[in-house]
Amino acid sequence: MPGEFQIIREHFRRKQRDAALLVGIGDDGAVLRPREDHDLVVVTDTIVRGRHFPERFAAADIGWRALAVNLSDIAAMGAAPRFAFLNLALEEADDNWLRDFAGGFFSLAEQSGTLLAGGDTVRGPLSVTVTVIGEVARDAACTRAGARAGDYVCVTGTPGDAAAGLELLQAGADDEHPLVRRFRRPEPRLRAGRTLAGIATAMIDVSDGLLADLGHVLEASGAGARIEVSRLPVSAALADHAEKPAEYVLAGGDDYELCFTVPEERLEAVKGLDCRVSIIGRITAERGLRVLDANGREWRPERRGWDHFRNAHG
Amino acid sequence: MPGEFQIIREHFRRKQRDAALLVGIGDDGAVLRPREDHDLVVVTDTIVRGRHFPERFAAADIGWRALAVNLSDIAAMGAAPRFAFLNLALEEADDNWLRDFAGGFFSLAEQSGTLLAGGDTVRGPLSVTVTVIGEVARDAACTRAGARAGDYVCVTGTPGDAAAGLELLQAGADDEHPLVRRFRRPEPRLRAGRTLAGIATAMIDVSDGLLADLGHVLEASGAGARIEVSRLPVSAALADHAEKPAEYVLAGGDDYELCFTVPEERLEAVKGLDCRVSIIGRITAERGLRVLDANGREWRPERRGWDHFRNAHG
Repeated sequence: MPGEFQIIREHFRRKQRDAALLVGIGDDGAVLRPREDHDLVVVTDTIVRGRHFPERFAAADIGWRALAVNLSDIAAMGAAPRFAFLNLALEEADDNWLRDFAGGFFSLAEQSGTLLAGGDTVRGPLSVTVTVIGEVARDAACTRAGARAGDYVCVTGTPGDAAAGLELLQAGADDEHPLVRRFRRPEPRLRAGRTLAGIATAMIDVSDGLLADLGHVLEASGAGARIEVSRLPVSAALADHAEKPAEYVLAGGDDYELCFTVPEERLEAVKGLDCRVSIIGRITAERGLRVLDANGREWRPERRGWDHFRNAHG
Repeated sequence: MPGEFQIIREHFRRKQRDAALLVGIGDDGAVLRPREDHDLVVVTDTIVRGRHFPERFAAADIGWRALAVNLSDIAAMGAAPRFAFLNLALEEADDNWLRDFAGGFFSLAEQSGTLLAGGDTVRGPLSVTVTVIGEVARDAACTRAGARAGDYVCVTGTPGDAAAGLELLQAGADDEHPLVRRFRRPEPRLRAGRTLAGIATAMIDVSDGLLADLGHVLEASGAGARIEVSRLPVSAALADHAEKPAEYVLAGGDDYELCFTVPEERLEAVKGLDCRVSIIGRITAERGLRVLDANGREWRPERRGWDHFRNAHG
């Protein structure tokens, strides 16, 4: 079996140059030179087999996901990713698996302009931790805490697709089914996030489910919201698949879309984003999250956002 | 069982203030404002039960160790720690275990001036990843790559103690035995590392064993070294415990001492360190690491530094 140093040399050391990366992989630590007049955003997420992805999940998809979930957090802060750190615990060092994993990881790293600057490889039950450092203009980071009464609640893309895709994947559907693909290869909304940094009053990425994540915004902002089911975006594929698509849109996780709030006077600016945006409701001064159906009746989801420690996933 | 958010709220959210930490735990990411005229050093290490610490290891010691191994890397770069990120995979959320783990982690965090700024809690086989961001004056970071022929090879403290301590621990010795304590509570050489940033030509922390880690310095520096067994520091406790203490000093891991090289004209400055320092040999232009016994004969260790993927630990 190859050793730790050999694994890093063979699979994770690529020619990557960046004037801000003074020392990269291979020393006790990486040395970075932050850009002046910028703040740094640091995000980190661990994914574990059987919890955050199915037991049988392609190595390339795991590599992609480990980075994607972090880039999504970077996007939600309105930042641009710069450097990633990869901590990989492996049961065994299988060269084919490592090559595929690195392939998935680096394909997203390269398209997003993220450099792998360090990490650690250990033996243990498979889990992957990625930490990403991004940058944002000084004081421009967008938190969960700024939503104000009257702001519109918006969401990018078509959440719910990934949850349906996971169901299909587990039922044996083809990897290339559009919903399965949405689960396998989430596309972090990096460009939209950066644009929204100057526009949104609060932002979060939808990882646990739209209602659960919007709930975090409301808690941090000390506000409430009213959401209209009739305004929820539903993809054609999801409408085709699900009898009650709103369940998926509101409670399905793993989409990595952005949910954000924007005041009326800046709503026009949202149209410039590079993706679909739906206005799904408004922020209220009154606390609590109300979801209303087409008849104005309180709508109660059967599914709920999941907490890694409480509910199994899929 | 408490949920992820509850775990963070109860055990890991402490009142910590720092003007450079604009957003801490509780948003999609942390927002930091780097100090002007400084570079950042980023280190990350994962520790796994049964690999990096024994199956039965106190939760407080695991919390301490997860941070200590990273602070040791920060020290080896000559940097000062600022912010830590903690990714915790847990089989179950046991409140007593979490309280003790957090106690060990924060006791070292507080004494080293490190703020917990973010992280992730997931369910899975126990493993702990910590990432630390430190700072160092611009261009002052000390890498493994600067050793030059003629430089003295030095080491702090008394390496080998921790390996002996692990043996004793596994044989049922008391937690407070001085060698066991050296394994349980490694003290990262932060102050020495910062002082050495302007003095040492190359530096590394001794985690895999003195010979193995010095080997990394030689490889990065394109040089060789001659080490004299008679010059190795041996603690009284190790001399008492081991028949062949040099084996422990040269090949034992987990000490987190600093090994560094220094030119003759700066040797005087090393005396100002806050810990014992031993000159154990010199850097040679000729490649290769030679270890000579008191009679000038080539000395071959029976034990070797360990690679996480090749050898079991203890």
